Amino acid sequence: MMIINSIDKLRDVLDAQRANHKTIGLVPTMGFLHQGHLSLMQCAKRDTDFVVVSIFVNPTQFGPNEDFEAYPRDLKRDAERCDSVGVDVIFAPEVSEMYPEQASTFVSCEGAITRTLCGASRPGHFKGVTTVVAKLFNIVQPDKAFFGQKDAQQVVIIEKMVRELNMRLQIVPCPIVREADGLAMSSRNTYLSETARKEALVLSQSLAEANRLIQSGERDPEAIINVMRKTIETAPSAQIDYIQIVDGRNLEDLKTLKGEVLIALAVKIDQTRLIDNLRLTLPA
Amino acid sequence: MMIINSIDKLRDVLDAQRANHKTIGLVPTMGFLHQGHLSLMQCAKRDTDFVVVSIFVNPTQFGPNEDFEAYPRDLKRDAERCDSVGVDVIFAPEVSEMYPEQASTFVSCEGAITRTLCGASRPGHFKGVTTVVAKLFNIVQPDKAFFGQKDAQQVVIIEKMVRELNMRLQIVPCPIVREADGLAMSSRNTYLSETARKEALVLSQSLAEANRLIQSGERDPEAIINVMRKTIETAPSAQIDYIQIVDGRNLEDLKTLKGEVLIALAVKIDQTRLIDNLRLTLPA
Repeated sequence: MMIINSIDKLRDVLDAQRANHKTIGLVPTMGFLHQGHLSLMQCAKRDTDFVVVSIFVNPTQFGPNEDFEAYPRDLKRDAERCDSVGVDVIFAPEVSEMYPEQASTFVSCEGAITRTLCGASRPGHFKGVTTVVAKLFNIVQPDKAFFGQKDAQQVVIIEKMVRELNMRLQIVPCPIVREADGLAMSSRNTYLSETARKEALVLSQSLAEANRLIQSGERDPEAIINVMRKTIETAPSAQIDYIQIVDGRNLEDLKTLKGEVLIALAVKIDQTRLIDNLRLTLPA
Repeated sequence: MMIINSIDKLRDVLDAQRANHKTIGLVPTMGFLHQGHLSLMQCAKRDTDFVVVSIFVNPTQFGPNEDFEAYPRDLKRDAERCDSVGVDVIFAPEVSEMYPEQASTFVSCEGAITRTLCGASRPGHFKGVTTVVAKLFNIVQPDKAFFGQKDAQQVVIIEKMVRELNMRLQIVPCPIVREADGLAMSSRNTYLSETARKEALVLSQSLAEANRLIQSGERDPEAIINVMRKTIETAPSAQIDYIQIVDGRNLEDLKTLKGEVLIALAVKIDQTRLIDNLRLTLPA
């Protein structure tokens, strides 16, 4: 496995693979890799011939009061994990390699799709994401790129960007990976104290309850959200950012549950903002 | 020569060329082709193996009160002209092929570079340009793309977009082509009445005067602009939008002429907005 910091060097390596008719898979990450990331790499190994994992904590997707500096980093451990699942290249550029000048070219999805859910409390976040992902796509030119469904809104936005800008690759969304007790894997889980770690279970528990209600026939979003809110409020330090039930294709709020349904939530446990979600396909 | 309307069909044709190790050149145009466009195609023929000319009057780069509907179109004549210089493919998509959904993903260069010169009186114009050009680059995946220096600001912005988004192609700017009497070629010249056509000569005449002043040692932008303004004002119907002398790399106003200099102007003659410019390299 190679670790490459330079865009030019990476392109040379990938050109050689393409010349051999190898398909290329990209797993974009911010590092501090957990089992969720590893499952994306395993998907990529299965679907493509040559797998690139990018590890880049992208400053432009963090707000001024967010955790860019504090975001956990451990390239050595990340490299071991990538190697263990057969990744071919880690692309780990410095910020100066990705943004050599004051960046002023942006790719953005406008409209409700980036203002709802996480977009409401993280203005500018998705503009940073689409811009860096577009850059990574242009650098790697992958046949397929793999994203975790935990960032459900990100997946919908990136699929829209790819479609609307005619980018020539396939986006492969991969299922959420959870700890044994249900907590969705996240690099930010490392911020949680022992107490907060226990309280954090209310996120996945509230989704499980929503699922039970829906399986027993409930179709009213407000009724479901109310039950979820009560569950979450059992955690003393929980602060709900949002609980929303939206159309899984365009993220518009649903008045009644049908078709592609996305139940998404963001909750602060202590100081740590966590997200989780559930996707369901119901009769239209 | 093929005329192709469909993105998928175009990609099939281009993939076959790439499989044969042919390099691909793209000349993006809005059609109603004149000698200026043909010179871009000739550059493309010289520099690449397989030349695609896109003909697409892009609605998103026209303002609400601009001439999108009136913009001249003549695909039959355009096809003859392309054929005469050995173009391989015309890509002439419908608006619905380029924008199948309400477009909400945009590529934009922010900051002064898109607000100065034409950006001041055409808000949103360059956002439309960078978005459609990014789409065309993703559709065609050319090795090189050819743009006329008449749209000097457009060239600088597109080069910036390519650099900052790590797009993998080379931008080739090509010289302005002029009528025998000096008027820069433009599809919009067709709007000019006989009288206006004569008055329009003040644009190139003012640039020639600026050049004479600079060759005789003048380095003060205000002095040069004043002389240019007087020349332009000899045309009774001329309304100056801007005359600016800027750094040719970043389009920032120059206090004294040195290095890469761009003298650019936009003038309305009757109802027709015309642009022209002169690039010079002076001692730093």
